[in-house]
Amino acid sequence: MRTHPVQTTLLNCGISNEVLNTYKERVERFHFELENSDDMTGWIDYPLMDHEQLFREIESLKEEISGNADVFVVIGIGGSFLGARAVQEALTPYFGARENGTEVKYVGHHMSGAYLQQLLHYLDDKEIYINVVSKSGSTMETALAFRVLRQYMENRYGDDAAQRIIVTTDPEKSPLKRIAEKNGYRHFAVPPDIGGRYSVFTPVGLLPIAVAGINIRSFMEGARNAALELKESDLTLNHAYQYAVIRNKLYNEGYSVEVLASFEPALKQFHEWWKQLFGESEGKEGRGIFPTCLTFSTDLHAIGQFIQEGSPILFETLLHFQETEGDYIVPFDQRNEDGLNYLAGRSFNEINATSKQGTALAHAEGGVPVIQLEMKKLDEYHLGYLMYFFMKACAMSAKLIEVNPFDQPGVEAYKRKMLELLKNPK
Amino acid sequence: MRTHPVQTTLLNCGISNEVLNTYKERVERFHFELENSDDMTGWIDYPLMDHEQLFREIESLKEEISGNADVFVVIGIGGSFLGARAVQEALTPYFGARENGTEVKYVGHHMSGAYLQQLLHYLDDKEIYINVVSKSGSTMETALAFRVLRQYMENRYGDDAAQRIIVTTDPEKSPLKRIAEKNGYRHFAVPPDIGGRYSVFTPVGLLPIAVAGINIRSFMEGARNAALELKESDLTLNHAYQYAVIRNKLYNEGYSVEVLASFEPALKQFHEWWKQLFGESEGKEGRGIFPTCLTFSTDLHAIGQFIQEGSPILFETLLHFQETEGDYIVPFDQRNEDGLNYLAGRSFNEINATSKQGTALAHAEGGVPVIQLEMKKLDEYHLGYLMYFFMKACAMSAKLIEVNPFDQPGVEAYKRKMLELLKNPK
Repeated sequence: MRTHPVQTTLLNCGISNEVLNTYKERVERFHFELENSDDMTGWIDYPLMDHEQLFREIESLKEEISGNADVFVVIGIGGSFLGARAVQEALTPYFGARENGTEVKYVGHHMSGAYLQQLLHYLDDKEIYINVVSKSGSTMETALAFRVLRQYMENRYGDDAAQRIIVTTDPEKSPLKRIAEKNGYRHFAVPPDIGGRYSVFTPVGLLPIAVAGINIRSFMEGARNAALELKESDLTLNHAYQYAVIRNKLYNEGYSVEVLASFEPALKQFHEWWKQLFGESEGKEGRGIFPTCLTFSTDLHAIGQFIQEGSPILFETLLHFQETEGDYIVPFDQRNEDGLNYLAGRSFNEINATSKQGTALAHAEGGVPVIQLEMKKLDEYHLGYLMYFFMKACAMSAKLIEVNPFDQPGVEAYKRKMLELLKNPK
Repeated sequence: MRTHPVQTTLLNCGISNEVLNTYKERVERFHFELENSDDMTGWIDYPLMDHEQLFREIESLKEEISGNADVFVVIGIGGSFLGARAVQEALTPYFGARENGTEVKYVGHHMSGAYLQQLLHYLDDKEIYINVVSKSGSTMETALAFRVLRQYMENRYGDDAAQRIIVTTDPEKSPLKRIAEKNGYRHFAVPPDIGGRYSVFTPVGLLPIAVAGINIRSFMEGARNAALELKESDLTLNHAYQYAVIRNKLYNEGYSVEVLASFEPALKQFHEWWKQLFGESEGKEGRGIFPTCLTFSTDLHAIGQFIQEGSPILFETLLHFQETEGDYIVPFDQRNEDGLNYLAGRSFNEINATSKQGTALAHAEGGVPVIQLEMKKLDEYHLGYLMYFFMKACAMSAKLIEVNPFDQPGVEAYKRKMLELLKNPK
């Protein structure tokens, strides 16, 4: 088997050739259904298309923003910000922005009045650009925050505000598009056949990622290679489909919760993106694996007890990056009062990798099915590959439980109730 | 019924008097078992005891730190930092520290080399104090980070480092206690009969909370009132026990996952504390409700789809604070291009509360059992009350599924495996 950037190791939930054979035909059929469908499947070939002009436009805008803003405010919710934020936080230092990037802040992803008030206060002594992202152009949280931020920009910059407001929305149906045209805001199109949770490789994700100082060409190169390699219809050669099949087999055996656990806290927002992708794609018609995420070893000292010995409803997917930007060596200490000199000279990342091995062994012995996804490095290329890998696996997973991976009818329920209550206050 | 600070509203999972009667006797028995036990139940009466001397010691140290440090670094994992961080993040502005508080950073809660390296770089131009928190004094993550930070302090401050290092640990058995005495570090005791996840009201939580500029007396007043009111053995009068009973009833009906959802992003770390409390107390012997948390309305546009229409394995506990520090009024906009003028003049918090109502209705109609916990204000007093409320409810919950609420045997499994691998590297 070739060496894929995502190495899937099946610890104690390996699937036999017999099992693979029972899935082979169905996977192939669903593969061709996905490939030949034109219902919200624009994301499948998007990374294979020529985006040179878009890259240049984004890169030039990034330079303009670098020179004229301290903070780039992204206004969006759900698929309109989760992908961008996942990549930005995974590849930005823990303290402060990248040297070649602009600080990115988010708003419009909830309705906290305290947060909004404090954000505006924070922005008062900084130069800013804003990017409102909404495919429909009418999502309440985003629209309300945009109303506030837009007036704030006009108060601060007067006629120059238009230059600092960027709109990412549907090219045809969105009211935001009309607002942009009427007021002279620059705007990017969200391809109509790509849904929010599959949109990180479009301008929805690429503009904030680029502004943060991250190389979007490497990121897209990872996605492109994944799109090529995972076009394989043969289950025995397609790692993403194998992951989908293992999940399905475990689901059928009664495991109702998947824990995605990673070992680098920079991946917390990546977890949020992953939860939306799988939860919103699969959770319908009374079906689906409930997706939840943990950061180890932090959570081994918290919810770890439950995984090891609690209700046997979980399986675990361990996501590990062998290298990160930066590391630290355990120092020697003459006093050795803590008895840890035996670790002196080893790196924290090395010990972290051992903690991952220990976790896999302990949980597997405890009877928890453990899937391991091993990536070489936490960088643009591998994140791009991994995100596409999960998208492809997710679409196949949803097909295997016979739900539509691309709709979200249940999200409307709370919106309707909220609107009724807002329009008819007691 | 009296008005408790935690108002429990049972939407569609109310329990009838018949059900309450079937639990009444068991709850009373377990109540007296807890009250009369001396096995790790020190937390039950701790807020009722006189801590005046401890408060003064902590307040005086907080003044010293305010005057001499820009950053207070807490080194701890699991119960040694989750409670402090929950309160600190809930009651600190989203951007920057409190006016009367010192910035608090955390380390030793995972083994990311990148994070450690970047934290030290961040600290380089700031004055610092450090607080290492570990009951046993030998937890690997914490001990390794303390080794690094201690040398860092000695390099920066020479002999004065000892004045800037504070130890919180077991008063007798811990090797950290010996290190503190030998090197002249000030130290606080973790009461031996209080476990990590029940320790937020001890110096483990109180010192970092005070240093962040939060009023620990109001916080403890909330806990004290909860401890008094929830000493009630009668299930029909004890809201914490009612919450425990509803959970147990739902668990017995096959709901295996509890989603705690709140409407203020400042509560994200509070969620982490809550997950440890319930997960580690209940998840053993193949039993327990899997605890997970969401922030609404952010997650209504992500995992909300799953809750509304996915596998029917979840029940939901909505946690809502009516008031927060700060809010924002939706402005009128002459152009009304977004059509939202009908909301002008209303506050974001008001709309957020409506979103909560809409969510409860939508999810209940979708067949999800919804419990509502309503708090008056997100402040010291109510957080203190709420945390004690959850602790009491959790102990009773664990009793109801007949597991020990105060041990965590499964956490050792991964530690053992990791140590084996570290001591015998391939």
